[in-house]
Amino acid sequence: MDSGLLSPVRAGTPVEAAVSDEAWLQAMLDAEAALARAQARLGTLPAHAAEVITRTAKAERLDLVALAHAARETANPVVGLVQALTKEVAAADPTAADYVHRGSTSQDVFDTAAMLVADRALRLITADLRRSAHALAVTAAAHRDTPMAGRTLTLHAVPTTFGLKAAGWRSLILDSAERIDRLLDGGLPISLGGAAGTLAGYLEYARIDASPTDPVNTTNLIHPTNLDIPTNTPTPAGPPPSPDPTAYLNALTAAYAAETGLAVPLLPWHALRTPMADLAAALAHTTGALGKLAADVQVLARTEISEVAEPAVAGRGASSAMPHKRNPVLATLIRSAALQVPALAMALTQCLVTEDERAAGVWHAEWLLLRECLRLAGGAAHTAVELTEGLTVNSARMAANLDLTGSQITSERVAVVLAPSLGKAAAKALLTEASITATATARPLADVLSELPAVKALLTPAQLTTLLDPTHYTGAAAPLTDQALTRPSHP
Amino acid sequence: MDSGLLSPVRAGTPVEAAVSDEAWLQAMLDAEAALARAQARLGTLPAHAAEVITRTAKAERLDLVALAHAARETANPVVGLVQALTKEVAAADPTAADYVHRGSTSQDVFDTAAMLVADRALRLITADLRRSAHALAVTAAAHRDTPMAGRTLTLHAVPTTFGLKAAGWRSLILDSAERIDRLLDGGLPISLGGAAGTLAGYLEYARIDASPTDPVNTTNLIHPTNLDIPTNTPTPAGPPPSPDPTAYLNALTAAYAAETGLAVPLLPWHALRTPMADLAAALAHTTGALGKLAADVQVLARTEISEVAEPAVAGRGASSAMPHKRNPVLATLIRSAALQVPALAMALTQCLVTEDERAAGVWHAEWLLLRECLRLAGGAAHTAVELTEGLTVNSARMAANLDLTGSQITSERVAVVLAPSLGKAAAKALLTEASITATATARPLADVLSELPAVKALLTPAQLTTLLDPTHYTGAAAPLTDQALTRPSHP
Amino acid sequence: MDSGLLSPVRAGTPVEAAVSDEAWLQAMLDAEAALARAQARLGTLPAHAAEVITRTAKAERLDLVALAHAARETANPVVGLVQALTKEVAAADPTAADYVHRGSTSQDVFDTAAMLVADRALRLITADLRRSAHALAVTAAAHRDTPMAGRTLTLHAVPTTFGLKAAGWRSLILDSAERIDRLLDGGLPISLGGAAGTLAGYLEYARIDASPTDPVNTTNLIHPTNLDIPTNTPTPAGPPPSPDPTAYLNALTAAYAAETGLAVPLLPWHALRTPMADLAAALAHTTGALGKLAADVQVLARTEISEVAEPAVAGRGASSAMPHKRNPVLATLIRSAALQVPALAMALTQCLVTEDERAAGVWHAEWLLLRECLRLAGGAAHTAVELTEGLTVNSARMAANLDLTGSQITSERVAVVLAPSLGKAAAKALLTEASITATATARPLADVLSELPAVKALLTPAQLTTLLDPTHYTGAAAPLTDQALTRPSHP
Amino acid sequence: MDSGLLSPVRAGTPVEAAVSDEAWLQAMLDAEAALARAQARLGTLPAHAAEVITRTAKAERLDLVALAHAARETANPVVGLVQALTKEVAAADPTAADYVHRGSTSQDVFDTAAMLVADRALRLITADLRRSAHALAVTAAAHRDTPMAGRTLTLHAVPTTFGLKAAGWRSLILDSAERIDRLLDGGLPISLGGAAGTLAGYLEYARIDASPTDPVNTTNLIHPTNLDIPTNTPTPAGPPPSPDPTAYLNALTAAYAAETGLAVPLLPWHALRTPMADLAAALAHTTGALGKLAADVQVLARTEISEVAEPAVAGRGASSAMPHKRNPVLATLIRSAALQVPALAMALTQCLVTEDERAAGVWHAEWLLLRECLRLAGGAAHTAVELTEGLTVNSARMAANLDLTGSQITSERVAVVLAPSLGKAAAKALLTEASITATATARPLADVLSELPAVKALLTPAQLTTLLDPTHYTGAAAPLTDQALTRPSHP
Repeated sequence: MDSGLLSPVRAGTPVEAAVSDEAWLQAMLDAEAALARAQARLGTLPAHAAEVITRTAKAERLDLVALAHAARETANPVVGLVQALTKEVAAADPTAADYVHRGSTSQDVFDTAAMLVADRALRLITADLRRSAHALAVTAAAHRDTPMAGRTLTLHAVPTTFGLKAAGWRSLILDSAERIDRLLDGGLPISLGGAAGTLAGYLEYARIDASPTDPVNTTNLIHPTNLDIPTNTPTPAGPPPSPDPTAYLNALTAAYAAETGLAVPLLPWHALRTPMADLAAALAHTTGALGKLAADVQVLARTEISEVAEPAVAGRGASSAMPHKRNPVLATLIRSAALQVPALAMALTQCLVTEDERAAGVWHAEWLLLRECLRLAGGAAHTAVELTEGLTVNSARMAANLDLTGSQITSERVAVVLAPSLGKAAAKALLTEASITATATARPLADVLSELPAVKALLTPAQLTTLLDPTHYTGAAAPLTDQALTRPSHP
Repeated sequence: MDSGLLSPVRAGTPVEAAVSDEAWLQAMLDAEAALARAQARLGTLPAHAAEVITRTAKAERLDLVALAHAARETANPVVGLVQALTKEVAAADPTAADYVHRGSTSQDVFDTAAMLVADRALRLITADLRRSAHALAVTAAAHRDTPMAGRTLTLHAVPTTFGLKAAGWRSLILDSAERIDRLLDGGLPISLGGAAGTLAGYLEYARIDASPTDPVNTTNLIHPTNLDIPTNTPTPAGPPPSPDPTAYLNALTAAYAAETGLAVPLLPWHALRTPMADLAAALAHTTGALGKLAADVQVLARTEISEVAEPAVAGRGASSAMPHKRNPVLATLIRSAALQVPALAMALTQCLVTEDERAAGVWHAEWLLLRECLRLAGGAAHTAVELTEGLTVNSARMAANLDLTGSQITSERVAVVLAPSLGKAAAKALLTEASITATATARPLADVLSELPAVKALLTPAQLTTLLDPTHYTGAAAPLTDQALTRPSHP
Repeated sequence: MDSGLLSPVRAGTPVEAAVSDEAWLQAMLDAEAALARAQARLGTLPAHAAEVITRTAKAERLDLVALAHAARETANPVVGLVQALTKEVAAADPTAADYVHRGSTSQDVFDTAAMLVADRALRLITADLRRSAHALAVTAAAHRDTPMAGRTLTLHAVPTTFGLKAAGWRSLILDSAERIDRLLDGGLPISLGGAAGTLAGYLEYARIDASPTDPVNTTNLIHPTNLDIPTNTPTPAGPPPSPDPTAYLNALTAAYAAETGLAVPLLPWHALRTPMADLAAALAHTTGALGKLAADVQVLARTEISEVAEPAVAGRGASSAMPHKRNPVLATLIRSAALQVPALAMALTQCLVTEDERAAGVWHAEWLLLRECLRLAGGAAHTAVELTEGLTVNSARMAANLDLTGSQITSERVAVVLAPSLGKAAAKALLTEASITATATARPLADVLSELPAVKALLTPAQLTTLLDPTHYTGAAAPLTDQALTRPSHP
Repeated sequence: MDSGLLSPVRAGTPVEAAVSDEAWLQAMLDAEAALARAQARLGTLPAHAAEVITRTAKAERLDLVALAHAARETANPVVGLVQALTKEVAAADPTAADYVHRGSTSQDVFDTAAMLVADRALRLITADLRRSAHALAVTAAAHRDTPMAGRTLTLHAVPTTFGLKAAGWRSLILDSAERIDRLLDGGLPISLGGAAGTLAGYLEYARIDASPTDPVNTTNLIHPTNLDIPTNTPTPAGPPPSPDPTAYLNALTAAYAAETGLAVPLLPWHALRTPMADLAAALAHTTGALGKLAADVQVLARTEISEVAEPAVAGRGASSAMPHKRNPVLATLIRSAALQVPALAMALTQCLVTEDERAAGVWHAEWLLLRECLRLAGGAAHTAVELTEGLTVNSARMAANLDLTGSQITSERVAVVLAPSLGKAAAKALLTEASITATATARPLADVLSELPAVKALLTPAQLTTLLDPTHYTGAAAPLTDQALTRPSHP
């Protein structure tokens, strides 16, 4: 059993169930049933058979482990699944059994199922992302004017606000949600190609089914009259005619899409794997965006920084050794996903390079990768909701940390103000020297500057104090936050 | 020098020049010049200075190697570039020197330059992709009805057509082009955030410049009257006021975007790296799509298959050892790119996880990765044009190969036709047995089948012959090709 | 449940059980029990308690799913496991409960368990690799002199032998086995560092246990006489003394290693992840080596080539659509693993970059990656045994394919023979021209050459015939095979 | 030119020159010359010719860019290189020209050159790694007893020492050095296989050369007497005999290895890419180990932590915007490499999966990847020397930070001491509660504890004070450091 023991980021989360083996098995059965119903819509399969198949196509009727093990014989689980489902259908109604997987191929069923699973998982993920975006909107608005140290290359750079930081996290998360929504809006596609992408099997059955009154008489099936071939041709030299394939394939794909709720692709995509690559890209973006949030929370939660804390829940974050520990476990879990998904997504993207009408191993490599990307991204998104909704912000600590450098954090500002008088390079050099002196002597930058003749000549002590106040040098942080928040959390 | 010796897929191609160190250096200079012009538009920088800076910002004036080596001291090449450019500007016009990089930060310049370089490279790439799509449209139309073996898991499966195969390649390539065009249409963004994403430096200069009549008098600049602070407040308790930051940042970003031809981002993206992740995804898709084409060409060009050949050019494909060899070098080059770009793109995508307002090393890791992704994808796209425009198709060989299995390639069809009479499972089992016998005895499947009573009872020899003709079992390949070709090669 | 439905390469194989959640849970319990026994060996824990803990530490007593879900609260499953195990131990013997996880930390237990799991899986893998090596040794010896086309860049190059090809596969597989054996021989290490790698908790308990007669009297524990502090120091100013830490840590690590069967590392490796990187490298090599085998089998099994076939087992390789198909499923499964493991192994290797004494998320990302690498590599190795032991070789087809180019495959030889007379470049050019002519006119190269005056002047028809016989131009293939087979399949 | 503008981690470092295009070109020429000398050693090539070839094989004589561009025609640069070198040799001595690349193939030359380049680069890298190890040994010894906060999951955990931390960095770096040295000690292999790994071309030339007195008379070359075929066989039915291939191939490979300084592989490895995978693994470990160092330095250099600083060099670490900044640029550069190399190394490792005797694109993908791995790892190693040799350690700040939690950092110890009296779980719970109270009330843990009856009953205030002193709870940090330093920095 994959309980999530090794993957706490998703253990017990909704996405876990949505992409479980059982869910995947059910999705394959859903695909088989939808295919039967689609063919029934077109009149090439008895409605009753479609009903029986639909009613019988339940995962709990089949032996999942046996199917999984049997898949080693055929390299995919559909061959065994078709046998098992056919047996169940035959038990329910022998006349329906021959309509299972009619004209179909393993990849049609598996890929359609994969898209059904992905669709369900993506809806969970984007909903969670948008919940986080909403929580961060509240946070960003609340801290629109909360100054904090901006940090670059690990060091205090210039001041910023926590509102802008939260708005930035939110912006990235909305980027992910948009990328997922774009896939959902365009519609993940059904897979319908038949054995090698030509739909020949489906068409052939349709041709045969064109003689519904005598379905067992195959000689009749290719008899000219039934196929609109001139009756005076006793032994046709050319191929047996078939229903208008364009009309039929369009009708069949439309019906299959309608029955599954998925979209119609331009071409069968057995070997044209854009849908997989798009999923990979969206999911890698998702854990990347959430990983940025987690990385920042981890920095800000450090003992020495302590500007944010994860939501305090009893028992949360406990250590097996250290009683005082309240580990930032949510960020930890999210980061663990962010460290895995890009690699998995890359391996999935590489499967674009797949020879023939179906490659031997490339298709087969995608399955676990897709599931794991969905599961880890979904777990991370779910975890992020709890993190963003419960994040504790310590404004006082932000203010205290802003003062740590003795105003060096505003050195840029003084350099700018002095630039017109001293020249830009000289002003910057003056501030560099003064900062070095301040650090070396552990004095506030104000003190060092106030003793410099060049500064004294240009700025009064009060002016200098004002310029060096970090809370007054947050630039456009507040209006940028405002602008960012005009982007809606929900579409 | 990086001559391309180790990367023939792009050696000497246009994209190579577009992303060279020189091009990147020029793009950084373009970014500096555009920034000066944008500030000049807003009246916070003399138009003359912007002119001088623009005129001076030429890569050939600077020592590229020296700048590269100096970048080790500051971890990025912009610090040294600003010094060098300032020196050049000062030589041209001392009054303009202080307006170089005014209020700016390294990342603003570097990232804007990266987007300029990417924009130029992407335009080359999408143009080449669409040229290939056009060539493949011609091929697909010409071979709309050319039957060939469909292959799955390396074996002959059911027949298909070369038209559908070419249409599939084209479809993937158009998917890549669309993903690139979407980035270009949305506009790659300028980078404008200042030291830590608040634009504080830009605003501060603007505030100072609000006193244009006396620019050297900094005491005046923070004088209450100039800053709308009540004059009876000798020691202002609050921060010095500044120009309306919202209006100013909007004006500045718009002006910078106009001067560079890039787009305005919602937020400064120093640490919000969606643009990089999007580029990575589009470029990985590109080499994946081209890699699929190359993989198929390699299979079809195999000595034993010989259904396609690369364009025959004198000397092309020569071996250093074997006189008879005409190696499929274009597909080889493309595949070499397809094996590299996903990994590089993944590493680029991972850089989404970047702590602080600018991470120490994460940003820095992106540069080479982005350039290499652009260069390899661009080289592959350029190579694919030659491959698709010159691909030689051997229809006779396709027909001959279709006969290799002695009609087993149409076993599905016979099973379908027999299914109504025998039952689907029994029909399939009959064909499986017959195929095994045919293979074991090296006889045509028709012979084996024609001896089976169950078959004889249902099908006449002529009917069987017709059903087993692979050229008559291409399903919807032709109409699918037609439909695929309705998608335009150029937008 | 993870039944293997999406990963048939390992579904039901022995490695699957060896790395299951249950196995991992048991390994953590084994680690806890071994730790107790190790402490008991040193006399700092009652032997009886160690016995009770060992007896109680059974995975089936615990609720795996509950532990997995609880792990979200603490970001690792050990915190909950310790609580659950302590409860079970307390139920069995309340006096033993306090000796569970004594002085320990989550990572000591988890990493030791990971090494136990890895050790067990690696032994399965290397055994399977060596079984494949043995099978390939038999094949290589049997086909030492079986000529076949050597292929480069997809085309016939010069002849080789199937013996050399099989010896090459075997060589790579032995390289993998050696890399795994090197890890096993060096010994995967125990993890023993305590909360932050200093073993402080273990030492502290040992210090306390130095007063075994009065364990509840903690005042006594730091009483000078018990700690070799001069008794006339009523309030010690310095730290409480402790047992000789060097001796104790050496004894404890040795005892823990002895109890687990693992090795003693030089340092606690909580944040020094060489063991993980080494595993990643060995496992990526393994699937790479097996992937090379699979890729070649796939090429040689192609319908048009048909030089090898996978072992024929009833039902194996069946298609859900095409009755005649006997898909090369074993190679397919192996290749599916080879497409996944490098990415997973890379993500594992990246975890070398881990800040602090234990990083927040980096450690946590390793678990699933390691398990998946072990499971996929193990599944691939197991699958390869069946492939290599049952591979069917079609020498006649190899011979027939050798003739496909009308002797162009030996063009190198003729060029070499003519080189001394014509000059090397001229000889090669002559053969290039003749090959082009032969191909264009579909004539054997012999015919074209025999009409060329330059050739006629130097070689008799019989000589030319001899030189163009591909079976006589296999170079050192046979002795290379012999040499390669001197390397033993088993160490 | 690739100046390193986008890759400052290696710009201008020695490894950059060692792996440049020029170096690679020269290595290919070295391989050609060594091959000629090896053949001359065996008497199958005139010594004079080998001399001329060696003398002529100078990169500066060839047009690098032209060769790079020409490589697009043949997918590798060797075909053009052989032509260009032959022309140069012919100009020097026409009789020597035909001995260039005699019997050889592109891959023999390219792969041998790659190993020469790798060998040179690895020697630079391991030397730098060992210099860093030495510097860290000095640091670790100096700070053997310097207490600092141990940090896990970003929070203060228990105390450790800086000596142990530095010893840990060193241990990882020595692991890398050992992995590289193992490759160098085993010897990177020559590549010698001929067109398809059978050495047939080399053997054929040797056979011909067995008739040195009449080299132009090819009829003579296959005359029976010269080939030990019975003279009474006018038209030999069998193949022309050849020199004992085992003896010849052994002699040739030994001679080639001797001339290049590389090792003899067990088999030609054109398609058996263990040497590349081993390089990839060693280089990924190297940047991983250095990346761990860099990640820790970045944490410790944070403004709020300030426990270490990078070596202060004038101008180093300057920002283009902020005068006060002294960015930790060395760690930044190292981390940038650590973020790139694993992905590149993975792509290189994936090239193990390569079909045929030489795959079309897989081999070609390796080149850039290998170079970049070497260059980035080499740059990182070089940068680390400067970092480790100049690292500034602020022990006072470490001591101050240790006090930040008000002794909560030693909560584990108190829990251990109380455990025998209160029970382990109760003791831990007591400390957890007390820590929560201490944090919530911003009081020292000692104060909170000293008010608890359970504590007061067991510990005197002095004992509590002693137990809570973090400098006395560093466990085995010092002896672990001592042990780690017994591992030599140089082998």
